[in-house]
Amino acid sequence: MRSLTLALGTHSYPILIGGDLLERADLVQPFLSSPRIALVSNTTVAPLYLERLLGGLEKVGAAVTPIILPDGEAHKNWESLNLIHDALLAARCDRATTIVALGGGVVGDLAGFAAATYQRGVPFIQVPTTLLSQVDSSVGGKTGINHPRGKNMVGAFWQPKLVLADTDTLKTLPARELSAGLAEVIKYGLIRDLPFLEWLEANMDGLVRRDGQLLAEAIERSCANKAEVVAADEFETAKEGGRALLNLGHTFGHAIETGMGYGEWLHGEAVAAGTMMATELSRRLGWLSAADVDRVRALILRAGLPVTGPDLGLARYLELMSHDKKVIAGSLRLILLKSLGQAVIHADASPAEIAAAIEACCDA
Amino acid sequence: MRSLTLALGTHSYPILIGGDLLERADLVQPFLSSPRIALVSNTTVAPLYLERLLGGLEKVGAAVTPIILPDGEAHKNWESLNLIHDALLAARCDRATTIVALGGGVVGDLAGFAAATYQRGVPFIQVPTTLLSQVDSSVGGKTGINHPRGKNMVGAFWQPKLVLADTDTLKTLPARELSAGLAEVIKYGLIRDLPFLEWLEANMDGLVRRDGQLLAEAIERSCANKAEVVAADEFETAKEGGRALLNLGHTFGHAIETGMGYGEWLHGEAVAAGTMMATELSRRLGWLSAADVDRVRALILRAGLPVTGPDLGLARYLELMSHDKKVIAGSLRLILLKSLGQAVIHADASPAEIAAAIEACCDA
Repeated sequence: MRSLTLALGTHSYPILIGGDLLERADLVQPFLSSPRIALVSNTTVAPLYLERLLGGLEKVGAAVTPIILPDGEAHKNWESLNLIHDALLAARCDRATTIVALGGGVVGDLAGFAAATYQRGVPFIQVPTTLLSQVDSSVGGKTGINHPRGKNMVGAFWQPKLVLADTDTLKTLPARELSAGLAEVIKYGLIRDLPFLEWLEANMDGLVRRDGQLLAEAIERSCANKAEVVAADEFETAKEGGRALLNLGHTFGHAIETGMGYGEWLHGEAVAAGTMMATELSRRLGWLSAADVDRVRALILRAGLPVTGPDLGLARYLELMSHDKKVIAGSLRLILLKSLGQAVIHADASPAEIAAAIEACCDA
Repeated sequence: MRSLTLALGTHSYPILIGGDLLERADLVQPFLSSPRIALVSNTTVAPLYLERLLGGLEKVGAAVTPIILPDGEAHKNWESLNLIHDALLAARCDRATTIVALGGGVVGDLAGFAAATYQRGVPFIQVPTTLLSQVDSSVGGKTGINHPRGKNMVGAFWQPKLVLADTDTLKTLPARELSAGLAEVIKYGLIRDLPFLEWLEANMDGLVRRDGQLLAEAIERSCANKAEVVAADEFETAKEGGRALLNLGHTFGHAIETGMGYGEWLHGEAVAAGTMMATELSRRLGWLSAADVDRVRALILRAGLPVTGPDLGLARYLELMSHDKKVIAGSLRLILLKSLGQAVIHADASPAEIAAAIEACCDA
């Protein structure tokens, strides 16, 4: 088992990564404030893994209320959040009840936001079962739901007490979802870790083949990067650098997700196409070479991901991007690449430059 | 103008109390992170005071989006919260936009919860216009909405940057609402401030007559008590004493509010009847004398408040109270009085004792 810590003072927490962790309730028990647990999962993950997690928890005396949601990004909304709150109240869950999220990013974001808001906040544990949630969304405390006008527009910062990432769950992950997770893995290399980017170039085929050792290393190095960034800027308030850099490709990507309807494109797929747009824009600003762009494109393609976005029309892209959470005083703040392995926040790209980058990376 | 501070380290904030403050945008301006403001109010308060507040804010260059909600506790729900989020997105409010609540407790709780959750949190300012919100709900950062199964069951701790309490707004407050506010004023005397309780006994008639000086003093002494309690226990995690003591009468009162349907009984009215139940239970436990109970009853009556609850039926009272947020591991933790001016958390009252106290303070 690999172990690292997200250092946040009094609310620091461990991230545990390895095989066969679902049954290891002994790892969970020290983080429970009472034996009451509400276990949030979805109709895809629950049949596969609920029993293993439940069995372990019941062995250590926990009383678990399962709450099973419909699967998919299209359900990351008020209705699902209300379902969780209703179930928590029906089961008389109190302030010492721990909410455990078993699933991917949607389950984690929803369960986390429910934990942040039920009775003004209850403890929370993440048990991510997808590559994307293991390398990214389960770490750092961002929770929330989508709004018809924009992704993750409603939410809260609410840190978990523990992240328990069982890499065995990746064996059942659909190939498309594995690739979606790799988009966020590649992101860490691009924004701040050139040696990791080079390691990914050397090992991408093994990752796609699901070599367990390689996946565990990719997850650990991704979480280590994320933990460092979040520890330095928990609430994304840094003016330069900081947590916002984790959003490479996300402003473009959120426009794709919202524009296509939540769930059509997987988050990681949209981020991959968005990363190409950000990379292309960085080249147009003179920061990257054409060879750099080719290198990024080749790696994204090897991960089984799209390198172009859907044809939403330029006006729709720009309209959707203007709702981004990084907009301040009407100015769009994009995450771009000064070089491979070094991201910056850039507020001065002209609409024409942005438009050209989108068009260069769009299906005709 | 009276001024005090809620001391919470890096997120400490001032509470300003006095006449003619609505136009004083100079008091607000230092707390704005950008000129963008979303001003949440309701259909009762907006016609009276929106223009005065707006005029001042526009003079200092603020760009204000008004968001007007329907009035009343019955609207403290998901639908109203969604209305606010929709309006914030439609107006392209960004993370530096300050949400200002102009109104009573419902507006403040809703706008505060919207601020806590819009784009994972934006700055927030309270401009309370009722006695209840000036002495209690605008101070301390509790925000939230009601759930059909229980009051304030969904919410967040989200502290304002400033509380601006213009006592002139109390001149238009309906008598019933003034009385409702006095219930929370009396509470501070009962739980921790015997001299204030005695002052209230000496001055209750003047308060009900709306003597401006007396009201300002009552508000300041109430806020001073609340600020001390919240500063010592911001998240209500203290095992003994602490913030939970502010809930004297509230467990009984929430049962009345939920049981009657939100809005039938004003919150302060329900708290008044609930305070009598808690006082009666304290007498039955041997902590208060019959004369103490009479003294509390007389003061509540002079404030124009009910001293008995509605006839929900005992079973319904107990069922509703069992959903209280202070329930831990199935045990109901009531706030009771060891003596006048000294409250305690008590988890050991038997259902029979609780039932007897409810019955003694219920309409037949």
